[in-house]
Order: sequence, then structure tokens, then C-alpha cells
Amino acid sequence: MKKTGFISIFFGLITFLSAPVVQAGTNEALAELLKALEANGTISSEITDLVLKVAEQGDTTKSPAIAKEEVEKIVHEEVRLATKDQPKINMKDKFEVTSGDGQFSMRVGGRIQADAATYSEDLRRQNDGTEMRRARLFVQGNLWDAWKYKLQYDLVNTGSSGIADAYIQYTDLPWDIKVGHFKQPFSLQNMTSSKYITFTERGLPHLFTPGRAIGAGVGRSEKNWSLNAGIFGEGIDGASGDEDEGFALGGRATYAPILNNNQHLHLGASFSYRDSGSIDSLSFSDRPESHVTNVREVSTGSFNADTNLRTVAEAAYTNGPFSLQSEYYYVDIDRDSSTLSDLVFSGYYVEGSWFFTDDMRNYSGNKGSYGRIKPKSVVGKGGIGAWQLAMRFSSVDLNDADITGGDAQNFSLGLNWFATNNIRLSANYINVLDVNGGAGDGDEPEAFQMRAQVEF
Amino acid sequence: MKKTGFISIFFGLITFLSAPVVQAGTNEALAELLKALEANGTISSEITDLVLKVAEQGDTTKSPAIAKEEVEKIVHEEVRLATKDQPKINMKDKFEVTSGDGQFSMRVGGRIQADAATYSEDLRRQNDGTEMRRARLFVQGNLWDAWKYKLQYDLVNTGSSGIADAYIQYTDLPWDIKVGHFKQPFSLQNMTSSKYITFTERGLPHLFTPGRAIGAGVGRSEKNWSLNAGIFGEGIDGASGDEDEGFALGGRATYAPILNNNQHLHLGASFSYRDSGSIDSLSFSDRPESHVTNVREVSTGSFNADTNLRTVAEAAYTNGPFSLQSEYYYVDIDRDSSTLSDLVFSGYYVEGSWFFTDDMRNYSGNKGSYGRIKPKSVVGKGGIGAWQLAMRFSSVDLNDADITGGDAQNFSLGLNWFATNNIRLSANYINVLDVNGGAGDGDEPEAFQMRAQVEF
Amino acid sequence: MKKTGFISIFFGLITFLSAPVVQAGTNEALAELLKALEANGTISSEITDLVLKVAEQGDTTKSPAIAKEEVEKIVHEEVRLATKDQPKINMKDKFEVTSGDGQFSMRVGGRIQADAATYSEDLRRQNDGTEMRRARLFVQGNLWDAWKYKLQYDLVNTGSSGIADAYIQYTDLPWDIKVGHFKQPFSLQNMTSSKYITFTERGLPHLFTPGRAIGAGVGRSEKNWSLNAGIFGEGIDGASGDEDEGFALGGRATYAPILNNNQHLHLGASFSYRDSGSIDSLSFSDRPESHVTNVREVSTGSFNADTNLRTVAEAAYTNGPFSLQSEYYYVDIDRDSSTLSDLVFSGYYVEGSWFFTDDMRNYSGNKGSYGRIKPKSVVGKGGIGAWQLAMRFSSVDLNDADITGGDAQNFSLGLNWFATNNIRLSANYINVLDVNGGAGDGDEPEAFQMRAQVEF
Repeated sequence: MKKTGFISIFFGLITFLSAPVVQAGTNEALAELLKALEANGTISSEITDLVLKVAEQGDTTKSPAIAKEEVEKIVHEEVRLATKDQPKINMKDKFEVTSGDGQFSMRVGGRIQADAATYSEDLRRQNDGTEMRRARLFVQGNLWDAWKYKLQYDLVNTGSSGIADAYIQYTDLPWDIKVGHFKQPFSLQNMTSSKYITFTERGLPHLFTPGRAIGAGVGRSEKNWSLNAGIFGEGIDGASGDEDEGFALGGRATYAPILNNNQHLHLGASFSYRDSGSIDSLSFSDRPESHVTNVREVSTGSFNADTNLRTVAEAAYTNGPFSLQSEYYYVDIDRDSSTLSDLVFSGYYVEGSWFFTDDMRNYSGNKGSYGRIKPKSVVGKGGIGAWQLAMRFSSVDLNDADITGGDAQNFSLGLNWFATNNIRLSANYINVLDVNGGAGDGDEPEAFQMRAQVEF
Repeated sequence: MKKTGFISIFFGLITFLSAPVVQAGTNEALAELLKALEANGTISSEITDLVLKVAEQGDTTKSPAIAKEEVEKIVHEEVRLATKDQPKINMKDKFEVTSGDGQFSMRVGGRIQADAATYSEDLRRQNDGTEMRRARLFVQGNLWDAWKYKLQYDLVNTGSSGIADAYIQYTDLPWDIKVGHFKQPFSLQNMTSSKYITFTERGLPHLFTPGRAIGAGVGRSEKNWSLNAGIFGEGIDGASGDEDEGFALGGRATYAPILNNNQHLHLGASFSYRDSGSIDSLSFSDRPESHVTNVREVSTGSFNADTNLRTVAEAAYTNGPFSLQSEYYYVDIDRDSSTLSDLVFSGYYVEGSWFFTDDMRNYSGNKGSYGRIKPKSVVGKGGIGAWQLAMRFSSVDLNDADITGGDAQNFSLGLNWFATNNIRLSANYINVLDVNGGAGDGDEPEAFQMRAQVEF
Repeated sequence: MKKTGFISIFFGLITFLSAPVVQAGTNEALAELLKALEANGTISSEITDLVLKVAEQGDTTKSPAIAKEEVEKIVHEEVRLATKDQPKINMKDKFEVTSGDGQFSMRVGGRIQADAATYSEDLRRQNDGTEMRRARLFVQGNLWDAWKYKLQYDLVNTGSSGIADAYIQYTDLPWDIKVGHFKQPFSLQNMTSSKYITFTERGLPHLFTPGRAIGAGVGRSEKNWSLNAGIFGEGIDGASGDEDEGFALGGRATYAPILNNNQHLHLGASFSYRDSGSIDSLSFSDRPESHVTNVREVSTGSFNADTNLRTVAEAAYTNGPFSLQSEYYYVDIDRDSSTLSDLVFSGYYVEGSWFFTDDMRNYSGNKGSYGRIKPKSVVGKGGIGAWQLAMRFSSVDLNDADITGGDAQNFSLGLNWFATNNIRLSANYINVLDVNGGAGDGDEPEAFQMRAQVEF
């Protein structure tokens, strides 16, 4: 029996001591126990020594084994630690890399807009054909958290005139500060990217919109309003000849009194006051809302302009698939002349659109402009994309005093197919209803225009 | 003895119950056993309670410890899960990022081709010098799996004329659909990238090849054949003046009846039919297969062309290091005139090449063109790269009816050194054998041309 | 007792055998023991079989449980292995991806420099205004370890003239080899990137510096010295007209006898010998160290030049926040004419600068030029950036023999604010002290110039 007892104790103790759940320090208590057993003759001293030796060896692991859950926790944490400082790469819809700490990021992207158009001519010849409307690449990013930059180039243009955005921004003050070349804040259809406007071209009175320029601006926004203002030089090149550049002051305010998932109401107003600098000349002209042709529907030609004030009132309302948008432009030109009167030009457009799929225009309240349509069903993933019908009436009056640039009205129909978040195909029909005055007087062509667009 | 028994059972049971291999639920069975042992007097009720208490405590861990292999499996799986949705970044030879699910990708790449040439002049002066032949950047990618895009720009050109590729592609139908600006499918040496052609310039009759244009195309291919067709406008700008653009229909078929690791035979045919639009003018000209000089070896000048049909028959055969390639071009021009006859121009080239390292030309059967040479040994990694010798005879006849553009033959020798998959250095010797007619009549210069090329 | 013995042995053995610490192979020894126990009647053969069966089952785990530390080691190693071949992405200050094996890398970066300037005019009109001075994008990388490339484009320029760097480099020889379009090695202020020069424009005698060209160069450097030499063609286009390009030989040596954390002394010398090729014409001119205006402070107009040798001696010393820098240029022009004498032009500048924050200029001994300032405190991270004051006197003499380009001296004051490693704002005041001769004779305007710069 003693033997049995020895063996069972021996195995039992060894097993116990070397079992992973045995806490370190147990050995000392067991040594006491073994000594007691040895003292009452249950076990011999050899056994005590042997058991203790085995127990000690067992104890060399020093650490307990662990449960699967604990292992999984360790692994999870270790993997998290190993990857948390790794930059995050976003691939969906856009390529953007962000540092692990979020302080630095870079995005590389662009757009392609390939057009084809044919014209039903009236008085003047229009030129049918194809055109690469825009082919842009950009790099933008964050640096040290609060600093941003963007450099965007349109490859269809030549030299510095191809530079779209080239600016630096600081975002750690109540008002963001922007320096460089960027859009002067003006008008809803202008501040809405050409990727997201409803028709292939913006409505006629867009011709009043001041272009991008080098300047400094401040901006502030919340979820449903935005305020932007800036001072701007002229263009992107150094001044030409021996003439000083002019400068402009501009600003834009937007407010969305209604802004929820299904509905939004945009109200906005912009102004741009420009002093023309040494070269007091200005001109307004535009094609018939289709850019392939080279013929201008309206054109003032170059005229004297000391200063000019451009204003626009903006409104848009969206309710689910339906949307209405309208802007009214008013331009007052001081010709600084005793013989020539001041000039007033104006224009407006009204457009309505309807998604006949379960989609909706994407309004950004803190930018006061429209953004990317993300169709609920995607072509190539079993879906049919988003389909949108649109109508527009636009009007511009460039006749005043001695200037006869033309008073013109256009009607347009548009069909947009947003196949994926990145791909859009558009077909536009534009009918020049009437042109009164100017080189296009009485010329009422029709245009049928198509566009294939990718954004990446 | 009872004590011994108690101790051994006590330790044994505790150990057993708390041992990691004990499955949850064992406790209940043990409780039954303990009750039985207690009943037959082997152990007291105090022991039963104690053992059960300890067993329960042991059971609070609830989970067994696990083996190293299992830990490794967990870790492996956890790491796999943590990284499987991570974008994959390819760096070797090209920079490409692909989303974890493979639906989105972006590649940024480009090429540099820096040339220098010197000429042994004959009748006319040629201009020695250096030239950046191509300096291209591109971004291409996948969007939502089935959609692709590419935007490639050649920095040596100005404005929109620098846009090489700018297209959108949909690949989820039996025929791929492509819209935008891309190569009109025509000729083997044309569809082979300038990075991979055997000589620094394509053979003389390449002057017949229609350039890239905005259009829409369809394509289908398998391992050893390809079919492509499209309709194209003219160039990349909108139509100029008040003239309508012309349009072209084109197509190309290729088939490789032999296609294995050591041998391939390429057969192909292409055509391009173009209606010249409002401006019925056409011209063909080319330099002497070296681009640094500005002198044209042959040139028709501008002539009237209502429509033209260009065709080419293509053949190439590669057997290990040896390769032969030839194309024959035939162009028929309808001048739509009662007084001027139609014109027929033609040309061909035959080239042979031989790798004297253990390398081979890289034919792509589903594209019907040649691709990147990946030398078996790499310079900088203990290798010598791939070395290739080449010879070419090319001929073009631009004399017909009243047009005397020149009937010219060239002989060329080439040496290519593919140092790595990305780096290529080339030396070409070109001898103008004969020019009969045109501005270059009787002028038989020689050119020695070098190129350093990197592709990334 | 037997029962007790059996039970205790049974549990003890099973537990022991199935305990994770039991080494494989123990079973055989135990089988021997069980047989012995069975033989002396302690246990029955059924028990032996049962124990062995259980032991065998226990043995199927085959592996012992492991301790937490070991798990952590495994996890760490597994994560390391899983990520070690992953490309490394650097986001801080610059975006760079490097393959896991370090053989391939790609960096995408650029700079924006947006300027505005106003002039206090004297004799001639200067044009106030804004200018995008530089807007550059580049891609550079490593291929197969030893090969490098860089393609950099300045978007403010047109066509191929916008190509800054476009070269291939091989770095696995004692001397690096470079082929393509890059800076001819010449002068300290020239080899220092426009991002890092002290003033917004380089000092007047920079007009003597040969521009980038296509060529081949060799270079070697250690921590505190550099040697570069090369042979170069002219510009980046093919030769124009029917004229052969000229070529240049150039070289630069730099040495920093003092180079430690707080102090450095730069000494250097460069030369460029150019044969003008078929078109023997040369001209030197420059604006008044402010680039917005189009007026040239000095200008030789075009003159005959068969060959010319340009040399420059360079010196700079930095001690903590203080720095002095000066270069002397000497140009000798051979007009290869019996009637026209050779020409000698010269110039120099001296500039001093002082950081009144705890910052220092960043000298690179192996490049022999200045690099990026990394301010010790960063704006937007609670810091104020680095602030630097600078003064410069520069002089150039373009009057010699029949050429009267002007002998001019400028004094400049500069204030630089390095807000972060990437953002720099500069304000410069330039006073044209004197111009003697040439179109600008006696015209002493002042310029106030500002720049916003981002580098990414």
C-alpha cells in the first residue's frame, strides 16, 4: 500500500506542481506538506527530494500557461500595436494615404472628361467633333495636422494656365487661412466642381464668374453654413508688359435653413469687386453651353472697365430625388469715363432635376455646394447606377449702352447616368432659343453633347 | 493509509480537474464519482466538498490552456485577418496599390527616354544634339472591379497634345468597352509601346499610322488572339475654326497560331478608314528613323484627301533568342476630285533580332504586341542584363501621281542593353540607303543615335 | 485501499500523462512502470490498458501548453514576419514607399511657391502683381537597389521647358553615373534647391549659371566632400533649325573642413566650359532679384560667343544660428573673331543670416549644398516655427569691351518664417543701389516681395 501511496502521491504531486495552473510560490507550501508526510512515514525522504526536484524543474517555466481567449487578446493587441502606426490606405473611390497618427496625409487623384458633340446649325457654322474637356491630376494632403495643400493641374491647358489649385491652408484658427491659387468664392454652380454640375457645362451666366487667381482668403463654416472672403490678384502669371495687376475683393455666404437626410434648402450670396489695375479692359463671352464648338453665342468683345462689382444670389432646394436650383447674377461696371456710361449686365438660370432611381443630390452644407453622387446600386455589381433627368432655362443679357454682346436664352435637357461613384455618362440637348444682338444675333443652333467622365 | 489515499486522491483530483485538458462539464461527472467514493468510505464528505470547491475554482478559468501550434495558428489567422483587408502594395518594377478586396487599384508610373544623336551629313545639314524624347507620367487604376481608367501625359509636349491615354474602360461584358483618348488599333509596331520597340524609333512606314484620338472602342481577346475596333474623332482638341472634325473607323485582328514558352508566331491585320471632315487635307512625313534631327527624310506636304483607307499586314516569329518581324502598309486615298486621281502609298519593314544572352522577346498573345523584356540576370545584382542585336530594312514609297513625297530605303543596326526590368540603353546606327524624289532626293545621311531609358 | 489506490493512480497517471508539460516519449517509460505495477499486483491489466489508452489520447496533443511570454514572442515574431516584407510607407514631411527588401522605392512630391510683389518704381515702370513662381511635381525612386530615377516637372512652364529633372542614376560603382536631364554642377546657390535658398531669388550673379541640360555625369562624395563632373548638350529639345547643338564640360568640387553639429565651413569651386555649337550666340540678363516684374535690371542682349568658360569660387560658414555665404563668379568668353575682343564678366554676392529662434541652417557635406530647415518648434503643434533674418549684397558687372549689359549692385533684407518642415513664408525687401550702363542705367527701384511656399 505504501508503494501505491507513494506512486499516487508522486504522480499526483508532480502533476500538480507542474500543472500550468499552479501558481508560483506553491512549491514552498508543498515542500512543507511533503516534509509533514515524510515525518508521519507516508513517504520517504528520497521521495520528498525527488518530488521537490521535479517540482522545481516544473517551476523553471516560472510562468503559467494561458487560455485561448488570453492568447487571442494578446495577438489582437500585438497586431493592433504593430499596425496602429502604419499609414492607412484608402482605395475606395479615391486613393489616400494617412499616417498612423493622422497628422500627415496624401491623396493622388484626377478626372477625365471626354466629350463629343454635334450641332444643328442655324445661321453660323458650328464645329462638330470630339474634345478632351478636362484631364486633371492633383496631389493634396495634410502636413503636421493643421496645414493642408493642394496642387491640381489640367492637362488640356498650356503652361501655367493649366494650374487649377495651388494653395496652402492653415486650419487651426477659428477662420481657415488659404494662400495661393484657388477659386474666388462666387456662385453655387461655380463652387460646385465641374464633376458634379448637373449639365456638362454651367449655365450661361457663369460667364460673369471671376476665375481662379492668386490670393489670400479666410473661411469659416459649420454643418449648415459657410463664410468665405479673400483678396486676389490677376491670373497666375506675373503681370505682363509693364502693367500692374489689378486686384479683387470677394466673398460668399451660404446658409441651409433646411438640411436633413431627405431635404435641403440652400441660400447663398456672393460678390466680387475688382479694380482692373493698369490695363482697364474686360470682356464677357461664352459658347452655347456646349464646349466642343468654338463659336460664341454671346460676346461683348473687349471694353474699358476701371472697376466692376459682380453679385449673385443663389438658391437651391432638394427633396429626395427632386431638385431645383437657380441663381441670379448682376454685374455693374464703372468705366471711369466722362463720355461712357457705366454698364449693367445680368443673367440667371433655373434648373430642375429628378432622379428616377432611388438617389438624391449630395449637398454639402459646410461648403455650400454640391458633391459627388454615390449611386445606391452600382453597375458591374448587379446594379443599374443612378439615373437623373434635368431641365434648364438660362438667360444672359450683355446688351447695355454702347455694348451689344447679346441677350440670349437657352433651353437644355440633360440625362445623367452615374454608373458608379466614379463613372458618369451624360447626354445634353441644348437649344439656343433666342439671341438678340451681337455676333450671334438671331443664330439659334441646337447642340447634342455627350460626355464620359471618370473621377479617381 | 487513508491519509495517503486522501492526499493522493485530493491532489490527483484537483490536478485532474484543474488540468487544462479537462473539458467543461467533467465536473458534474466527477461530483458523481466523488459521491460514490464518499459512499463506500474511501473519502469523507469534507474531502468531497473540498475537492469540488477546488474543482469549481479551477473551472472558473473555463478555458483550457493551449499548445504552441494552436497559438501559432491563432496568430497566423489573426494576422491574416488584420492584413487581408489591407491594400497590397506592389513595388517591384512598378508601383501599384490594390485594395484588400481587389476591387480598387491605382498605379503611378512613367518613362524617361533621353536621346543623343550625331549625323554623318550628306546633301543637307542634320542637327546633332540631345533630346528628351519622351518623359511620361501616368496614373491608371481599377474602380469597382469592372471599371478601369488611364491618364497618361507626355511632358515633352505642350498642352493637350501631351495627353497620351485618357480613357475609361468597362470590362464586365463579353467585349470590353473603351471611351476616351487612346491608340487607334493599327499595326504591330504601333501597338507595341515605344518602351519595347526594337529600335529607338519605329520603322519608316509608321508614318502611315493614325495617331491617338478621342473615340469609342470595343475589344475582345483570349490567350492567343485579339480583336479590336473603334470609331474615332480627330485629335484631342475641339474642332478648330468653324470646321467639323472628320471621323475614322478602325480595327485590328491578331492571332498567334504558335504560342509557347520558346516560340511564337504572330499574324495580324489592321485597317483604318477615315473621312477627313470639313478640312480635306492630309500629309505624310518622317525623320530618318532618328528623332533628334529636324530634317524629314520623306514628306508629301499637305494634299487634298476626302477619305483614306490604310491597311497593314503584320507578321512576327520568335524562336528563343531569335526574332523576325515584318509589316506591309498599303494606303489608298480618295481625293474626291474629277481632275486629281486617287493616290496609293505603301511601305514595309523587315527586322531581325538576336539576344546573345539567354533572353527572349516578350510577346503578349491577348494584346497582339510585345511587352517588357525582363533580363534573366540583372545589373547591380551580379548579372550582366540582357543584350540584343538587331537589324532592320525599311522602305516607304510616297511617290504617286502628282505627289512626290519620296521613295526611301533605310538600313539600321541596333544594340540594346536591358540592364534591369526597368533600365534600357540603346545604340542605333541608321543608314539612309536611297531617297528618290521629294525634298530629300538623293540625300543619304547616316545617323548614330543613343538612348537611355527608364520605366517605372 | 486497492480501490483508492487504483483511483488515485488512475487519476494521477491520466492527469500526468495528459498534462501539457509531459514530454512526448514519456508514455513509453510510463508503460514500463504500469507493467511493473500490474506485475506486483497494485493495479489490474484493465487499469493498465485504460491508463495507456487515456495517455495516448492525451498524447495526441503532442505539444505542451506554453507560457504567456512565449506566446508574446511568437506573436511578435509572426507579426514581424507578416509585416517585414510589407512596403514601408513614410508620411512625415514626404510621401515615400519602400519595398520590404529595400530594393525598390517611390516618392511623390512637389512644391508650390506663390509670390506677390510691389515695386517702388524709379525710372522705369515695374509691374506689381502676383505670380505662381514654381509649382512642381516629381516622382523619384529606386529600382533594383542600385538604380535611381527622378522625373520632375514645373507646371508653370510650357511643354518640355517645364521638365526639371529627368534622369537615371547608377550607384553601385565608386563613382555614381547619371544620364538624362539635370543640373549642371555649378555654384553653391545654384546647387541649393530654390526651396532652401535664403532669399526668394538667388543673388544677381546667378545669371552666369548654366541651366539644366541633357548629359552624362559622374559623382563621388563622402560625409564632407563631393566631386561632380559631366558633359552636357543644350537644353531639352532636339536641336533647332539645321544647327548642331553645342556642348559643355563642367565640374564642381566641395569640401567642408569643419563639419559638426554646431558649425560648418563650406569651400567649393565649379567651372563650366561650353562650346556654343552652330549657333554662336549667348546672352546674360536678370530681374532685380524679384521675379514678379518683367523688367530686367541688367541685360547684355545677344552677342557672339564661340566658347565660354565660367568659374565660381564658393564659401560659406555657419555657427549655430549665424551663417555667412559668398560666391565669386568669373566668366571668360571667346568670340572667335579678329575684330571683337574676348569678354570678361564677373559678379559676387555676400549674404549673412541669423535665426533668432534656436535653429540652424542645414548643410549637407556630401552634396555641398544647403537642405531643408526643420524648425525645432512647429506651428500648429504649440510652437512658433523657425525665424530667420538675412541680408545680402550682390553685384554683377556685364560691361566689357563693346558690351554694356550693366554694372549693378543690390542690397536685400529678408525675413523667413519656417512654420513647419514643409511650410515657409518669406518677405524680401530689395533695393537696387546702382546700375551703371545698359537699359537699366541709373534705374534704382525697390521691391517688396512675399512668398508662400509648401514642400511635400
